[in-house]
Amino acid sequence: MNVTVRGRTRHYRTVTFDAGRNTVQLIEQRLLPHEFKIVATCDFRETAAAIRDMIVRGAGAIGATAAYGLAQGARAFRGRGFAKFSHHIEAVYATLKAARPTAVDPVNAMNDVRRVMAGGNTVHEQQTLALQAAEEFANQDVRHCEAIGRHGAKLIRNGMRVLTHCNAGWLAFVDIGTATAPMYAAQEAGREFHVYCDETRPRSQGATLTAWELAQQGISHQVIADNAAGHLMQRGEIDLVIVGSDRTLGRTGEVANKIGTYTQAVLAQRHGIPFYVAIPLSTIDWRLKRGREIPIEERHESEVLGAWGAVSRKHRVLGPRFDPRGYVRVANPASGARNPGFDVTPAELITGIITPAGIFKPAELWQRRREMGCAD
Amino acid sequence: MNVTVRGRTRHYRTVTFDAGRNTVQLIEQRLLPHEFKIVATCDFRETAAAIRDMIVRGAGAIGATAAYGLAQGARAFRGRGFAKFSHHIEAVYATLKAARPTAVDPVNAMNDVRRVMAGGNTVHEQQTLALQAAEEFANQDVRHCEAIGRHGAKLIRNGMRVLTHCNAGWLAFVDIGTATAPMYAAQEAGREFHVYCDETRPRSQGATLTAWELAQQGISHQVIADNAAGHLMQRGEIDLVIVGSDRTLGRTGEVANKIGTYTQAVLAQRHGIPFYVAIPLSTIDWRLKRGREIPIEERHESEVLGAWGAVSRKHRVLGPRFDPRGYVRVANPASGARNPGFDVTPAELITGIITPAGIFKPAELWQRRREMGCAD
Repeated sequence: MNVTVRGRTRHYRTVTFDAGRNTVQLIEQRLLPHEFKIVATCDFRETAAAIRDMIVRGAGAIGATAAYGLAQGARAFRGRGFAKFSHHIEAVYATLKAARPTAVDPVNAMNDVRRVMAGGNTVHEQQTLALQAAEEFANQDVRHCEAIGRHGAKLIRNGMRVLTHCNAGWLAFVDIGTATAPMYAAQEAGREFHVYCDETRPRSQGATLTAWELAQQGISHQVIADNAAGHLMQRGEIDLVIVGSDRTLGRTGEVANKIGTYTQAVLAQRHGIPFYVAIPLSTIDWRLKRGREIPIEERHESEVLGAWGAVSRKHRVLGPRFDPRGYVRVANPASGARNPGFDVTPAELITGIITPAGIFKPAELWQRRREMGCAD
Repeated sequence: MNVTVRGRTRHYRTVTFDAGRNTVQLIEQRLLPHEFKIVATCDFRETAAAIRDMIVRGAGAIGATAAYGLAQGARAFRGRGFAKFSHHIEAVYATLKAARPTAVDPVNAMNDVRRVMAGGNTVHEQQTLALQAAEEFANQDVRHCEAIGRHGAKLIRNGMRVLTHCNAGWLAFVDIGTATAPMYAAQEAGREFHVYCDETRPRSQGATLTAWELAQQGISHQVIADNAAGHLMQRGEIDLVIVGSDRTLGRTGEVANKIGTYTQAVLAQRHGIPFYVAIPLSTIDWRLKRGREIPIEERHESEVLGAWGAVSRKHRVLGPRFDPRGYVRVANPASGARNPGFDVTPAELITGIITPAGIFKPAELWQRRREMGCAD
């Protein structure tokens, strides 16, 4: 999507590859929303470190980064010995996989790349195919998000006020995003609407990343405390909710997503407000039978007990020397916290699931599993 | 309640009066939870400034502070001329009232004091009566909170996990508090239970003040993001909700309280969890006919766009030189926010209202208005 830096607007993807330099280019997401910077990783180890250290985050984005990282590693190999090359690829794969051990997207992406590579008969052919496959993985991510946008844009009519939670935007994918895709497509269709971004404590991805994205794209928006959505719904000031998903159960239509998503779904149902979940196909889990079986990560309590942001004086962000990762301890120093990172929204609260293949009721996913790439 | 400073535990009230020095002693609440400090105001103008600048906040606490401030002003008068004295009292009253123009508690408290003063025949007698009336106002606040604790303690059984939102604790009153009163009374009765404190964005009163209070009193507790309560309820980890109230409609049982209260009430109902509101009689509004008529204050967006806390490095609060009021700008610098300060919870979501006169269904308030001091 577009980013304006010092008055100049340019199109960026979250992840790209420079074939000449054999580098992966990434938006340094830890500095956002306070600073926009592109970093290039010079070898697969640096690429793995970028995934591990959260320079890049989000399902589609880390998938593409791992795919590019594998191609980068393959292309860095000097020599023609196939055995040595295979051995090297194993090491690259293992390094990239270990960068985010619980994520499925890097593994799926790299398996895609390896499947294509296997069609090459020489080291050089496999190196070429690796990059082609990685590019294709990234392009498919973009096409899927475009399709989500096409289907979802119909839901957003002129004058609507749309609520979203956390960040399922283009920064979490190669481009466009999932929950944001219908917004960008509706904007392109000339519709005017307003987005409320839930702050999304404790990590505040709504206030930081989603608000930054929408501001860059010129979409009317405001940040609200997570506590405020219920009040706005009660006063008739929210017409539609669209969120993303970390894992959707293909058998039941239950959706695991950032903590607080369930709360917004309960509120939306009470007020008769449509609640949609936009998902890439890669996040559908076709195996698990019950949402209660989804493990909920308990994250570090420092996230709840304080807040990160740009250090400022008198509410103004300081000039060029500000620290974009300042931390204040908000809570009582002698108190601890619980910090579940995700929650599970039952299918009954979900109006529809926006997929690249169309918008479906949660219960329809299973019938349509073939067209959505379920291998069973 | 008790506060432990450098290993010594002492009982404190939020507001007290030193008759010898003619000063009001206040806990400097803006430094909490990072620093505990008592400040003394030397004349009524300083007392008004303490109310205005939020050194003291909370319905009962500012009521008692204003009552003491009026007595302080009366006692500072030198001379015997009744006309001059009355003129002086008018000025003191107006100054204290203007310190927090929308609050009803200071006005009600000062009217109480003036009514008692009117029984005195000399300036000296009125000065004496003013202090007696202010002390009586403060003591009645404590007795009412004790009564709330007595009634509400029955709700808390051994092993329960109790959720509370914002701070309706002893810091908001002269002592004991409202939503916290049942917890302190249950603790005294030897019961063991665990309290989840909603952080309560944007001003984080739950993470700061309520967590501090509970830690000082040795009650088992943890802070959670406001987003996490729904998930904990879904997993059966919350048994009871007790919150306070800024205004309760005596005719309908609707409750206006800190933003996010309504959300917790909706969640509690979905999960069949009892939802109680603890209130002092002074916050019952017997006139208003519909919750929708309660004006909802839209507060400054800086509260939502950032966070206040102790400035720290590497997640550790710095030593003696830390800034307890550091601010980080969390949100995208180019984005704005909406910040409604309160919301209204309808009576149908409220299991019971804990008052000094007993626990009532919301619809019962109106029948019992006589015993709760309604003048109609």
